[in-house]
Amino acid sequence: MRMEIDEARLSRELDELAKFSAAPAPAVTRVVYSPEERAARAYVKQLCRRLNLEVRDDAVGNTFARLPGSEPALPAIATGSHIDAIPNAGRFDGTVGVLGGLAAIRAIKAAALRPRRSIELIAFAAEEPTRFGIGCFSSRMLAGTLTAEAAAGLRDRVGRTLDELRAEAGYTAPLDSVRLPEGYYGAFLELHIEQGPRLDRSGTKVGIVTAIAAPASLLIDVEGEGGHAGAVLMAERRDALCAAAEIVLAAETAAKASGARDTVATIGICDVFPGAVNSIPSRVTLSLDVRDIDEGRRDGVLAAIAEACEETAARRGVEARTAVINKDAPAACDSRVMNALTMGAARHNRAHIRMVSRAYHDALFMARIAPTGMLFIPCRDGVSHRPDEYASPEDIAIGATVLAEALAELANDPE
Amino acid sequence: MRMEIDEARLSRELDELAKFSAAPAPAVTRVVYSPEERAARAYVKQLCRRLNLEVRDDAVGNTFARLPGSEPALPAIATGSHIDAIPNAGRFDGTVGVLGGLAAIRAIKAAALRPRRSIELIAFAAEEPTRFGIGCFSSRMLAGTLTAEAAAGLRDRVGRTLDELRAEAGYTAPLDSVRLPEGYYGAFLELHIEQGPRLDRSGTKVGIVTAIAAPASLLIDVEGEGGHAGAVLMAERRDALCAAAEIVLAAETAAKASGARDTVATIGICDVFPGAVNSIPSRVTLSLDVRDIDEGRRDGVLAAIAEACEETAARRGVEARTAVINKDAPAACDSRVMNALTMGAARHNRAHIRMVSRAYHDALFMARIAPTGMLFIPCRDGVSHRPDEYASPEDIAIGATVLAEALAELANDPE
Repeated sequence: MRMEIDEARLSRELDELAKFSAAPAPAVTRVVYSPEERAARAYVKQLCRRLNLEVRDDAVGNTFARLPGSEPALPAIATGSHIDAIPNAGRFDGTVGVLGGLAAIRAIKAAALRPRRSIELIAFAAEEPTRFGIGCFSSRMLAGTLTAEAAAGLRDRVGRTLDELRAEAGYTAPLDSVRLPEGYYGAFLELHIEQGPRLDRSGTKVGIVTAIAAPASLLIDVEGEGGHAGAVLMAERRDALCAAAEIVLAAETAAKASGARDTVATIGICDVFPGAVNSIPSRVTLSLDVRDIDEGRRDGVLAAIAEACEETAARRGVEARTAVINKDAPAACDSRVMNALTMGAARHNRAHIRMVSRAYHDALFMARIAPTGMLFIPCRDGVSHRPDEYASPEDIAIGATVLAEALAELANDPE
Repeated sequence: MRMEIDEARLSRELDELAKFSAAPAPAVTRVVYSPEERAARAYVKQLCRRLNLEVRDDAVGNTFARLPGSEPALPAIATGSHIDAIPNAGRFDGTVGVLGGLAAIRAIKAAALRPRRSIELIAFAAEEPTRFGIGCFSSRMLAGTLTAEAAAGLRDRVGRTLDELRAEAGYTAPLDSVRLPEGYYGAFLELHIEQGPRLDRSGTKVGIVTAIAAPASLLIDVEGEGGHAGAVLMAERRDALCAAAEIVLAAETAAKASGARDTVATIGICDVFPGAVNSIPSRVTLSLDVRDIDEGRRDGVLAAIAEACEETAARRGVEARTAVINKDAPAACDSRVMNALTMGAARHNRAHIRMVSRAYHDALFMARIAPTGMLFIPCRDGVSHRPDEYASPEDIAIGATVLAEALAELANDPE
């Protein structure tokens, strides 16, 4: 019971952060490098400086705020999450891990502890794929799974490059300075809302993540033949939307048939061309997202969907091309980090459940370079990525408390 | 062999008309009341005046150009089509019937015939649904199937009313002056490209339409539940796009199962909300267009699709609401008009086939107030509503020749 989180203050800071949004409240829209995101980041940095943390940015806008340890040469213990938000999102996704992480560091300072290792808060530049179409581009760069060369080729929907956008936001160091070496951190911990209903339904306040599911994203382009809706007989059609509809259902079926409840497949985008009431669709673009904690099983589902695309295309006389956007390996969480979180929860008499994260997070990539763990708190009805996303101030404070315990524990570890 | 069409001149005028476009060639975009459409209409009127026709506009911009007959008190014989074009359309849809109709009147004049009845060219204000979401709004008004009151409520996508737009284009007479009484015309004939492949495939130059299919348009709104693509298990989802995909396929199945080849069903619009790679679709809007020459059969297909919507919605725990946009009766062509076209084709040794029009046209509404017929010419590969839409100058001239014969024949009919 050493750690004390100021629940009201943390809640106030989250309210304050939610005001930096391109969408009217309660919705939050905060795309990396937008004016709102830059203002939100300035606010977070101001809070860090007020706590006398050492603040620095890297070349893409990842922000680091360090509480120096008594043995600063030892690898630091890091925690953090993101402050960017997809269009029309909620207030808690990511922000709880950034401001909750800051509250944990504040509690450690207030407890007059001086851990051996430094503790570093990271506010990642962008976890959401909104700007560049790829999730976690900045933690991918930190971990080296996205190279500086590949990152230089990123463009947003209107064709602006990462280099243009980051320069405008004031980040001008070379891109190859972003990568951190393996062993740079002694551990990484991310506090996050669950974004699923399990904790909320069971009334459990703490979820300790054992593995982060492996996401894969594909673009599926279906090309048929257009024509006047009234003039072309059904038998003569090569309707791209009818073919796409079969693919949507095949993806659902393949995920349900994987044999595991952890497999999910989602088609979130369906763009129809020309998109007129009286025109047969000639082209449809689908986005496909498949996740599983088992990479082989996930790839089996991907293969089943690809096969269904081919079968549908052949039978309907259309073309279906698939392009891999990203295909990542799953991550197992580190047992020592999980133990530190378990002990932290126990110290505050909080029951916990162990669970997998089907959503992916910056932790998935941080796990490539550091022993990693994740801590989930409940969100109401499991709702996320929506304006009505909600986590209670009490639950957020519980998460920050357990995080503070684990950070202090790991930071005192001499190894 | 009395009628002579100047093929080169007609082709040149079509080329000239195609230049009035908001899209670069070969595409044509010409939305009613846009600067391009107004300029195109001025060009057509100039051609009419050069032939000494009596030109007038009505209150919504339908243009009428009359060649007076020797007994001008008899109801006139009318012909015409439209000059508006959907975004990224081709050069021949509608325009062939306007400039081909003008060429036919020119040929009748040149043959030094003086028919008893006046012959009137109509360039309808708008056949395409682009501006107001409803096809043929101006011929619907002429025929009284769209009332002045209902027309006053039309708004375009940016909220501008018909009254604002027509006033800006210079049309200020009251809306209730548009309607024409039944019997105002002795007959109406429309020359048009087929917009389907039948004539092109069979090598036949003339199609005589026996009936115009009855269109019905519905909006289908599917509401499920959104959420994070990674976090919500498959079994817990109420994915609006998966439900919509079933409805798309049900519409296709229902049209194919109607028992007649003339039944077509098309879903041309599929808007997904929120439309993000990592979000489960919470809402999908579909447009449904069903056509048949048999109204009862068409309504049977609509009912089957509505039933499939309900079944899908109930099984998947989503809501599916349908709203009727329009639902029109089919039209049978007039036997006397079909005979006049048949004789015209025979007089020039042109074989013809009788066929139904699954596309609908202004003729569908003119048939409510006048004996009506339609004449189709081939378009390459049946392609329409696309920049590569093509009809050869020779085929267009053949169509105009047969039209001229039929107009002259009907205009001399004393009854």
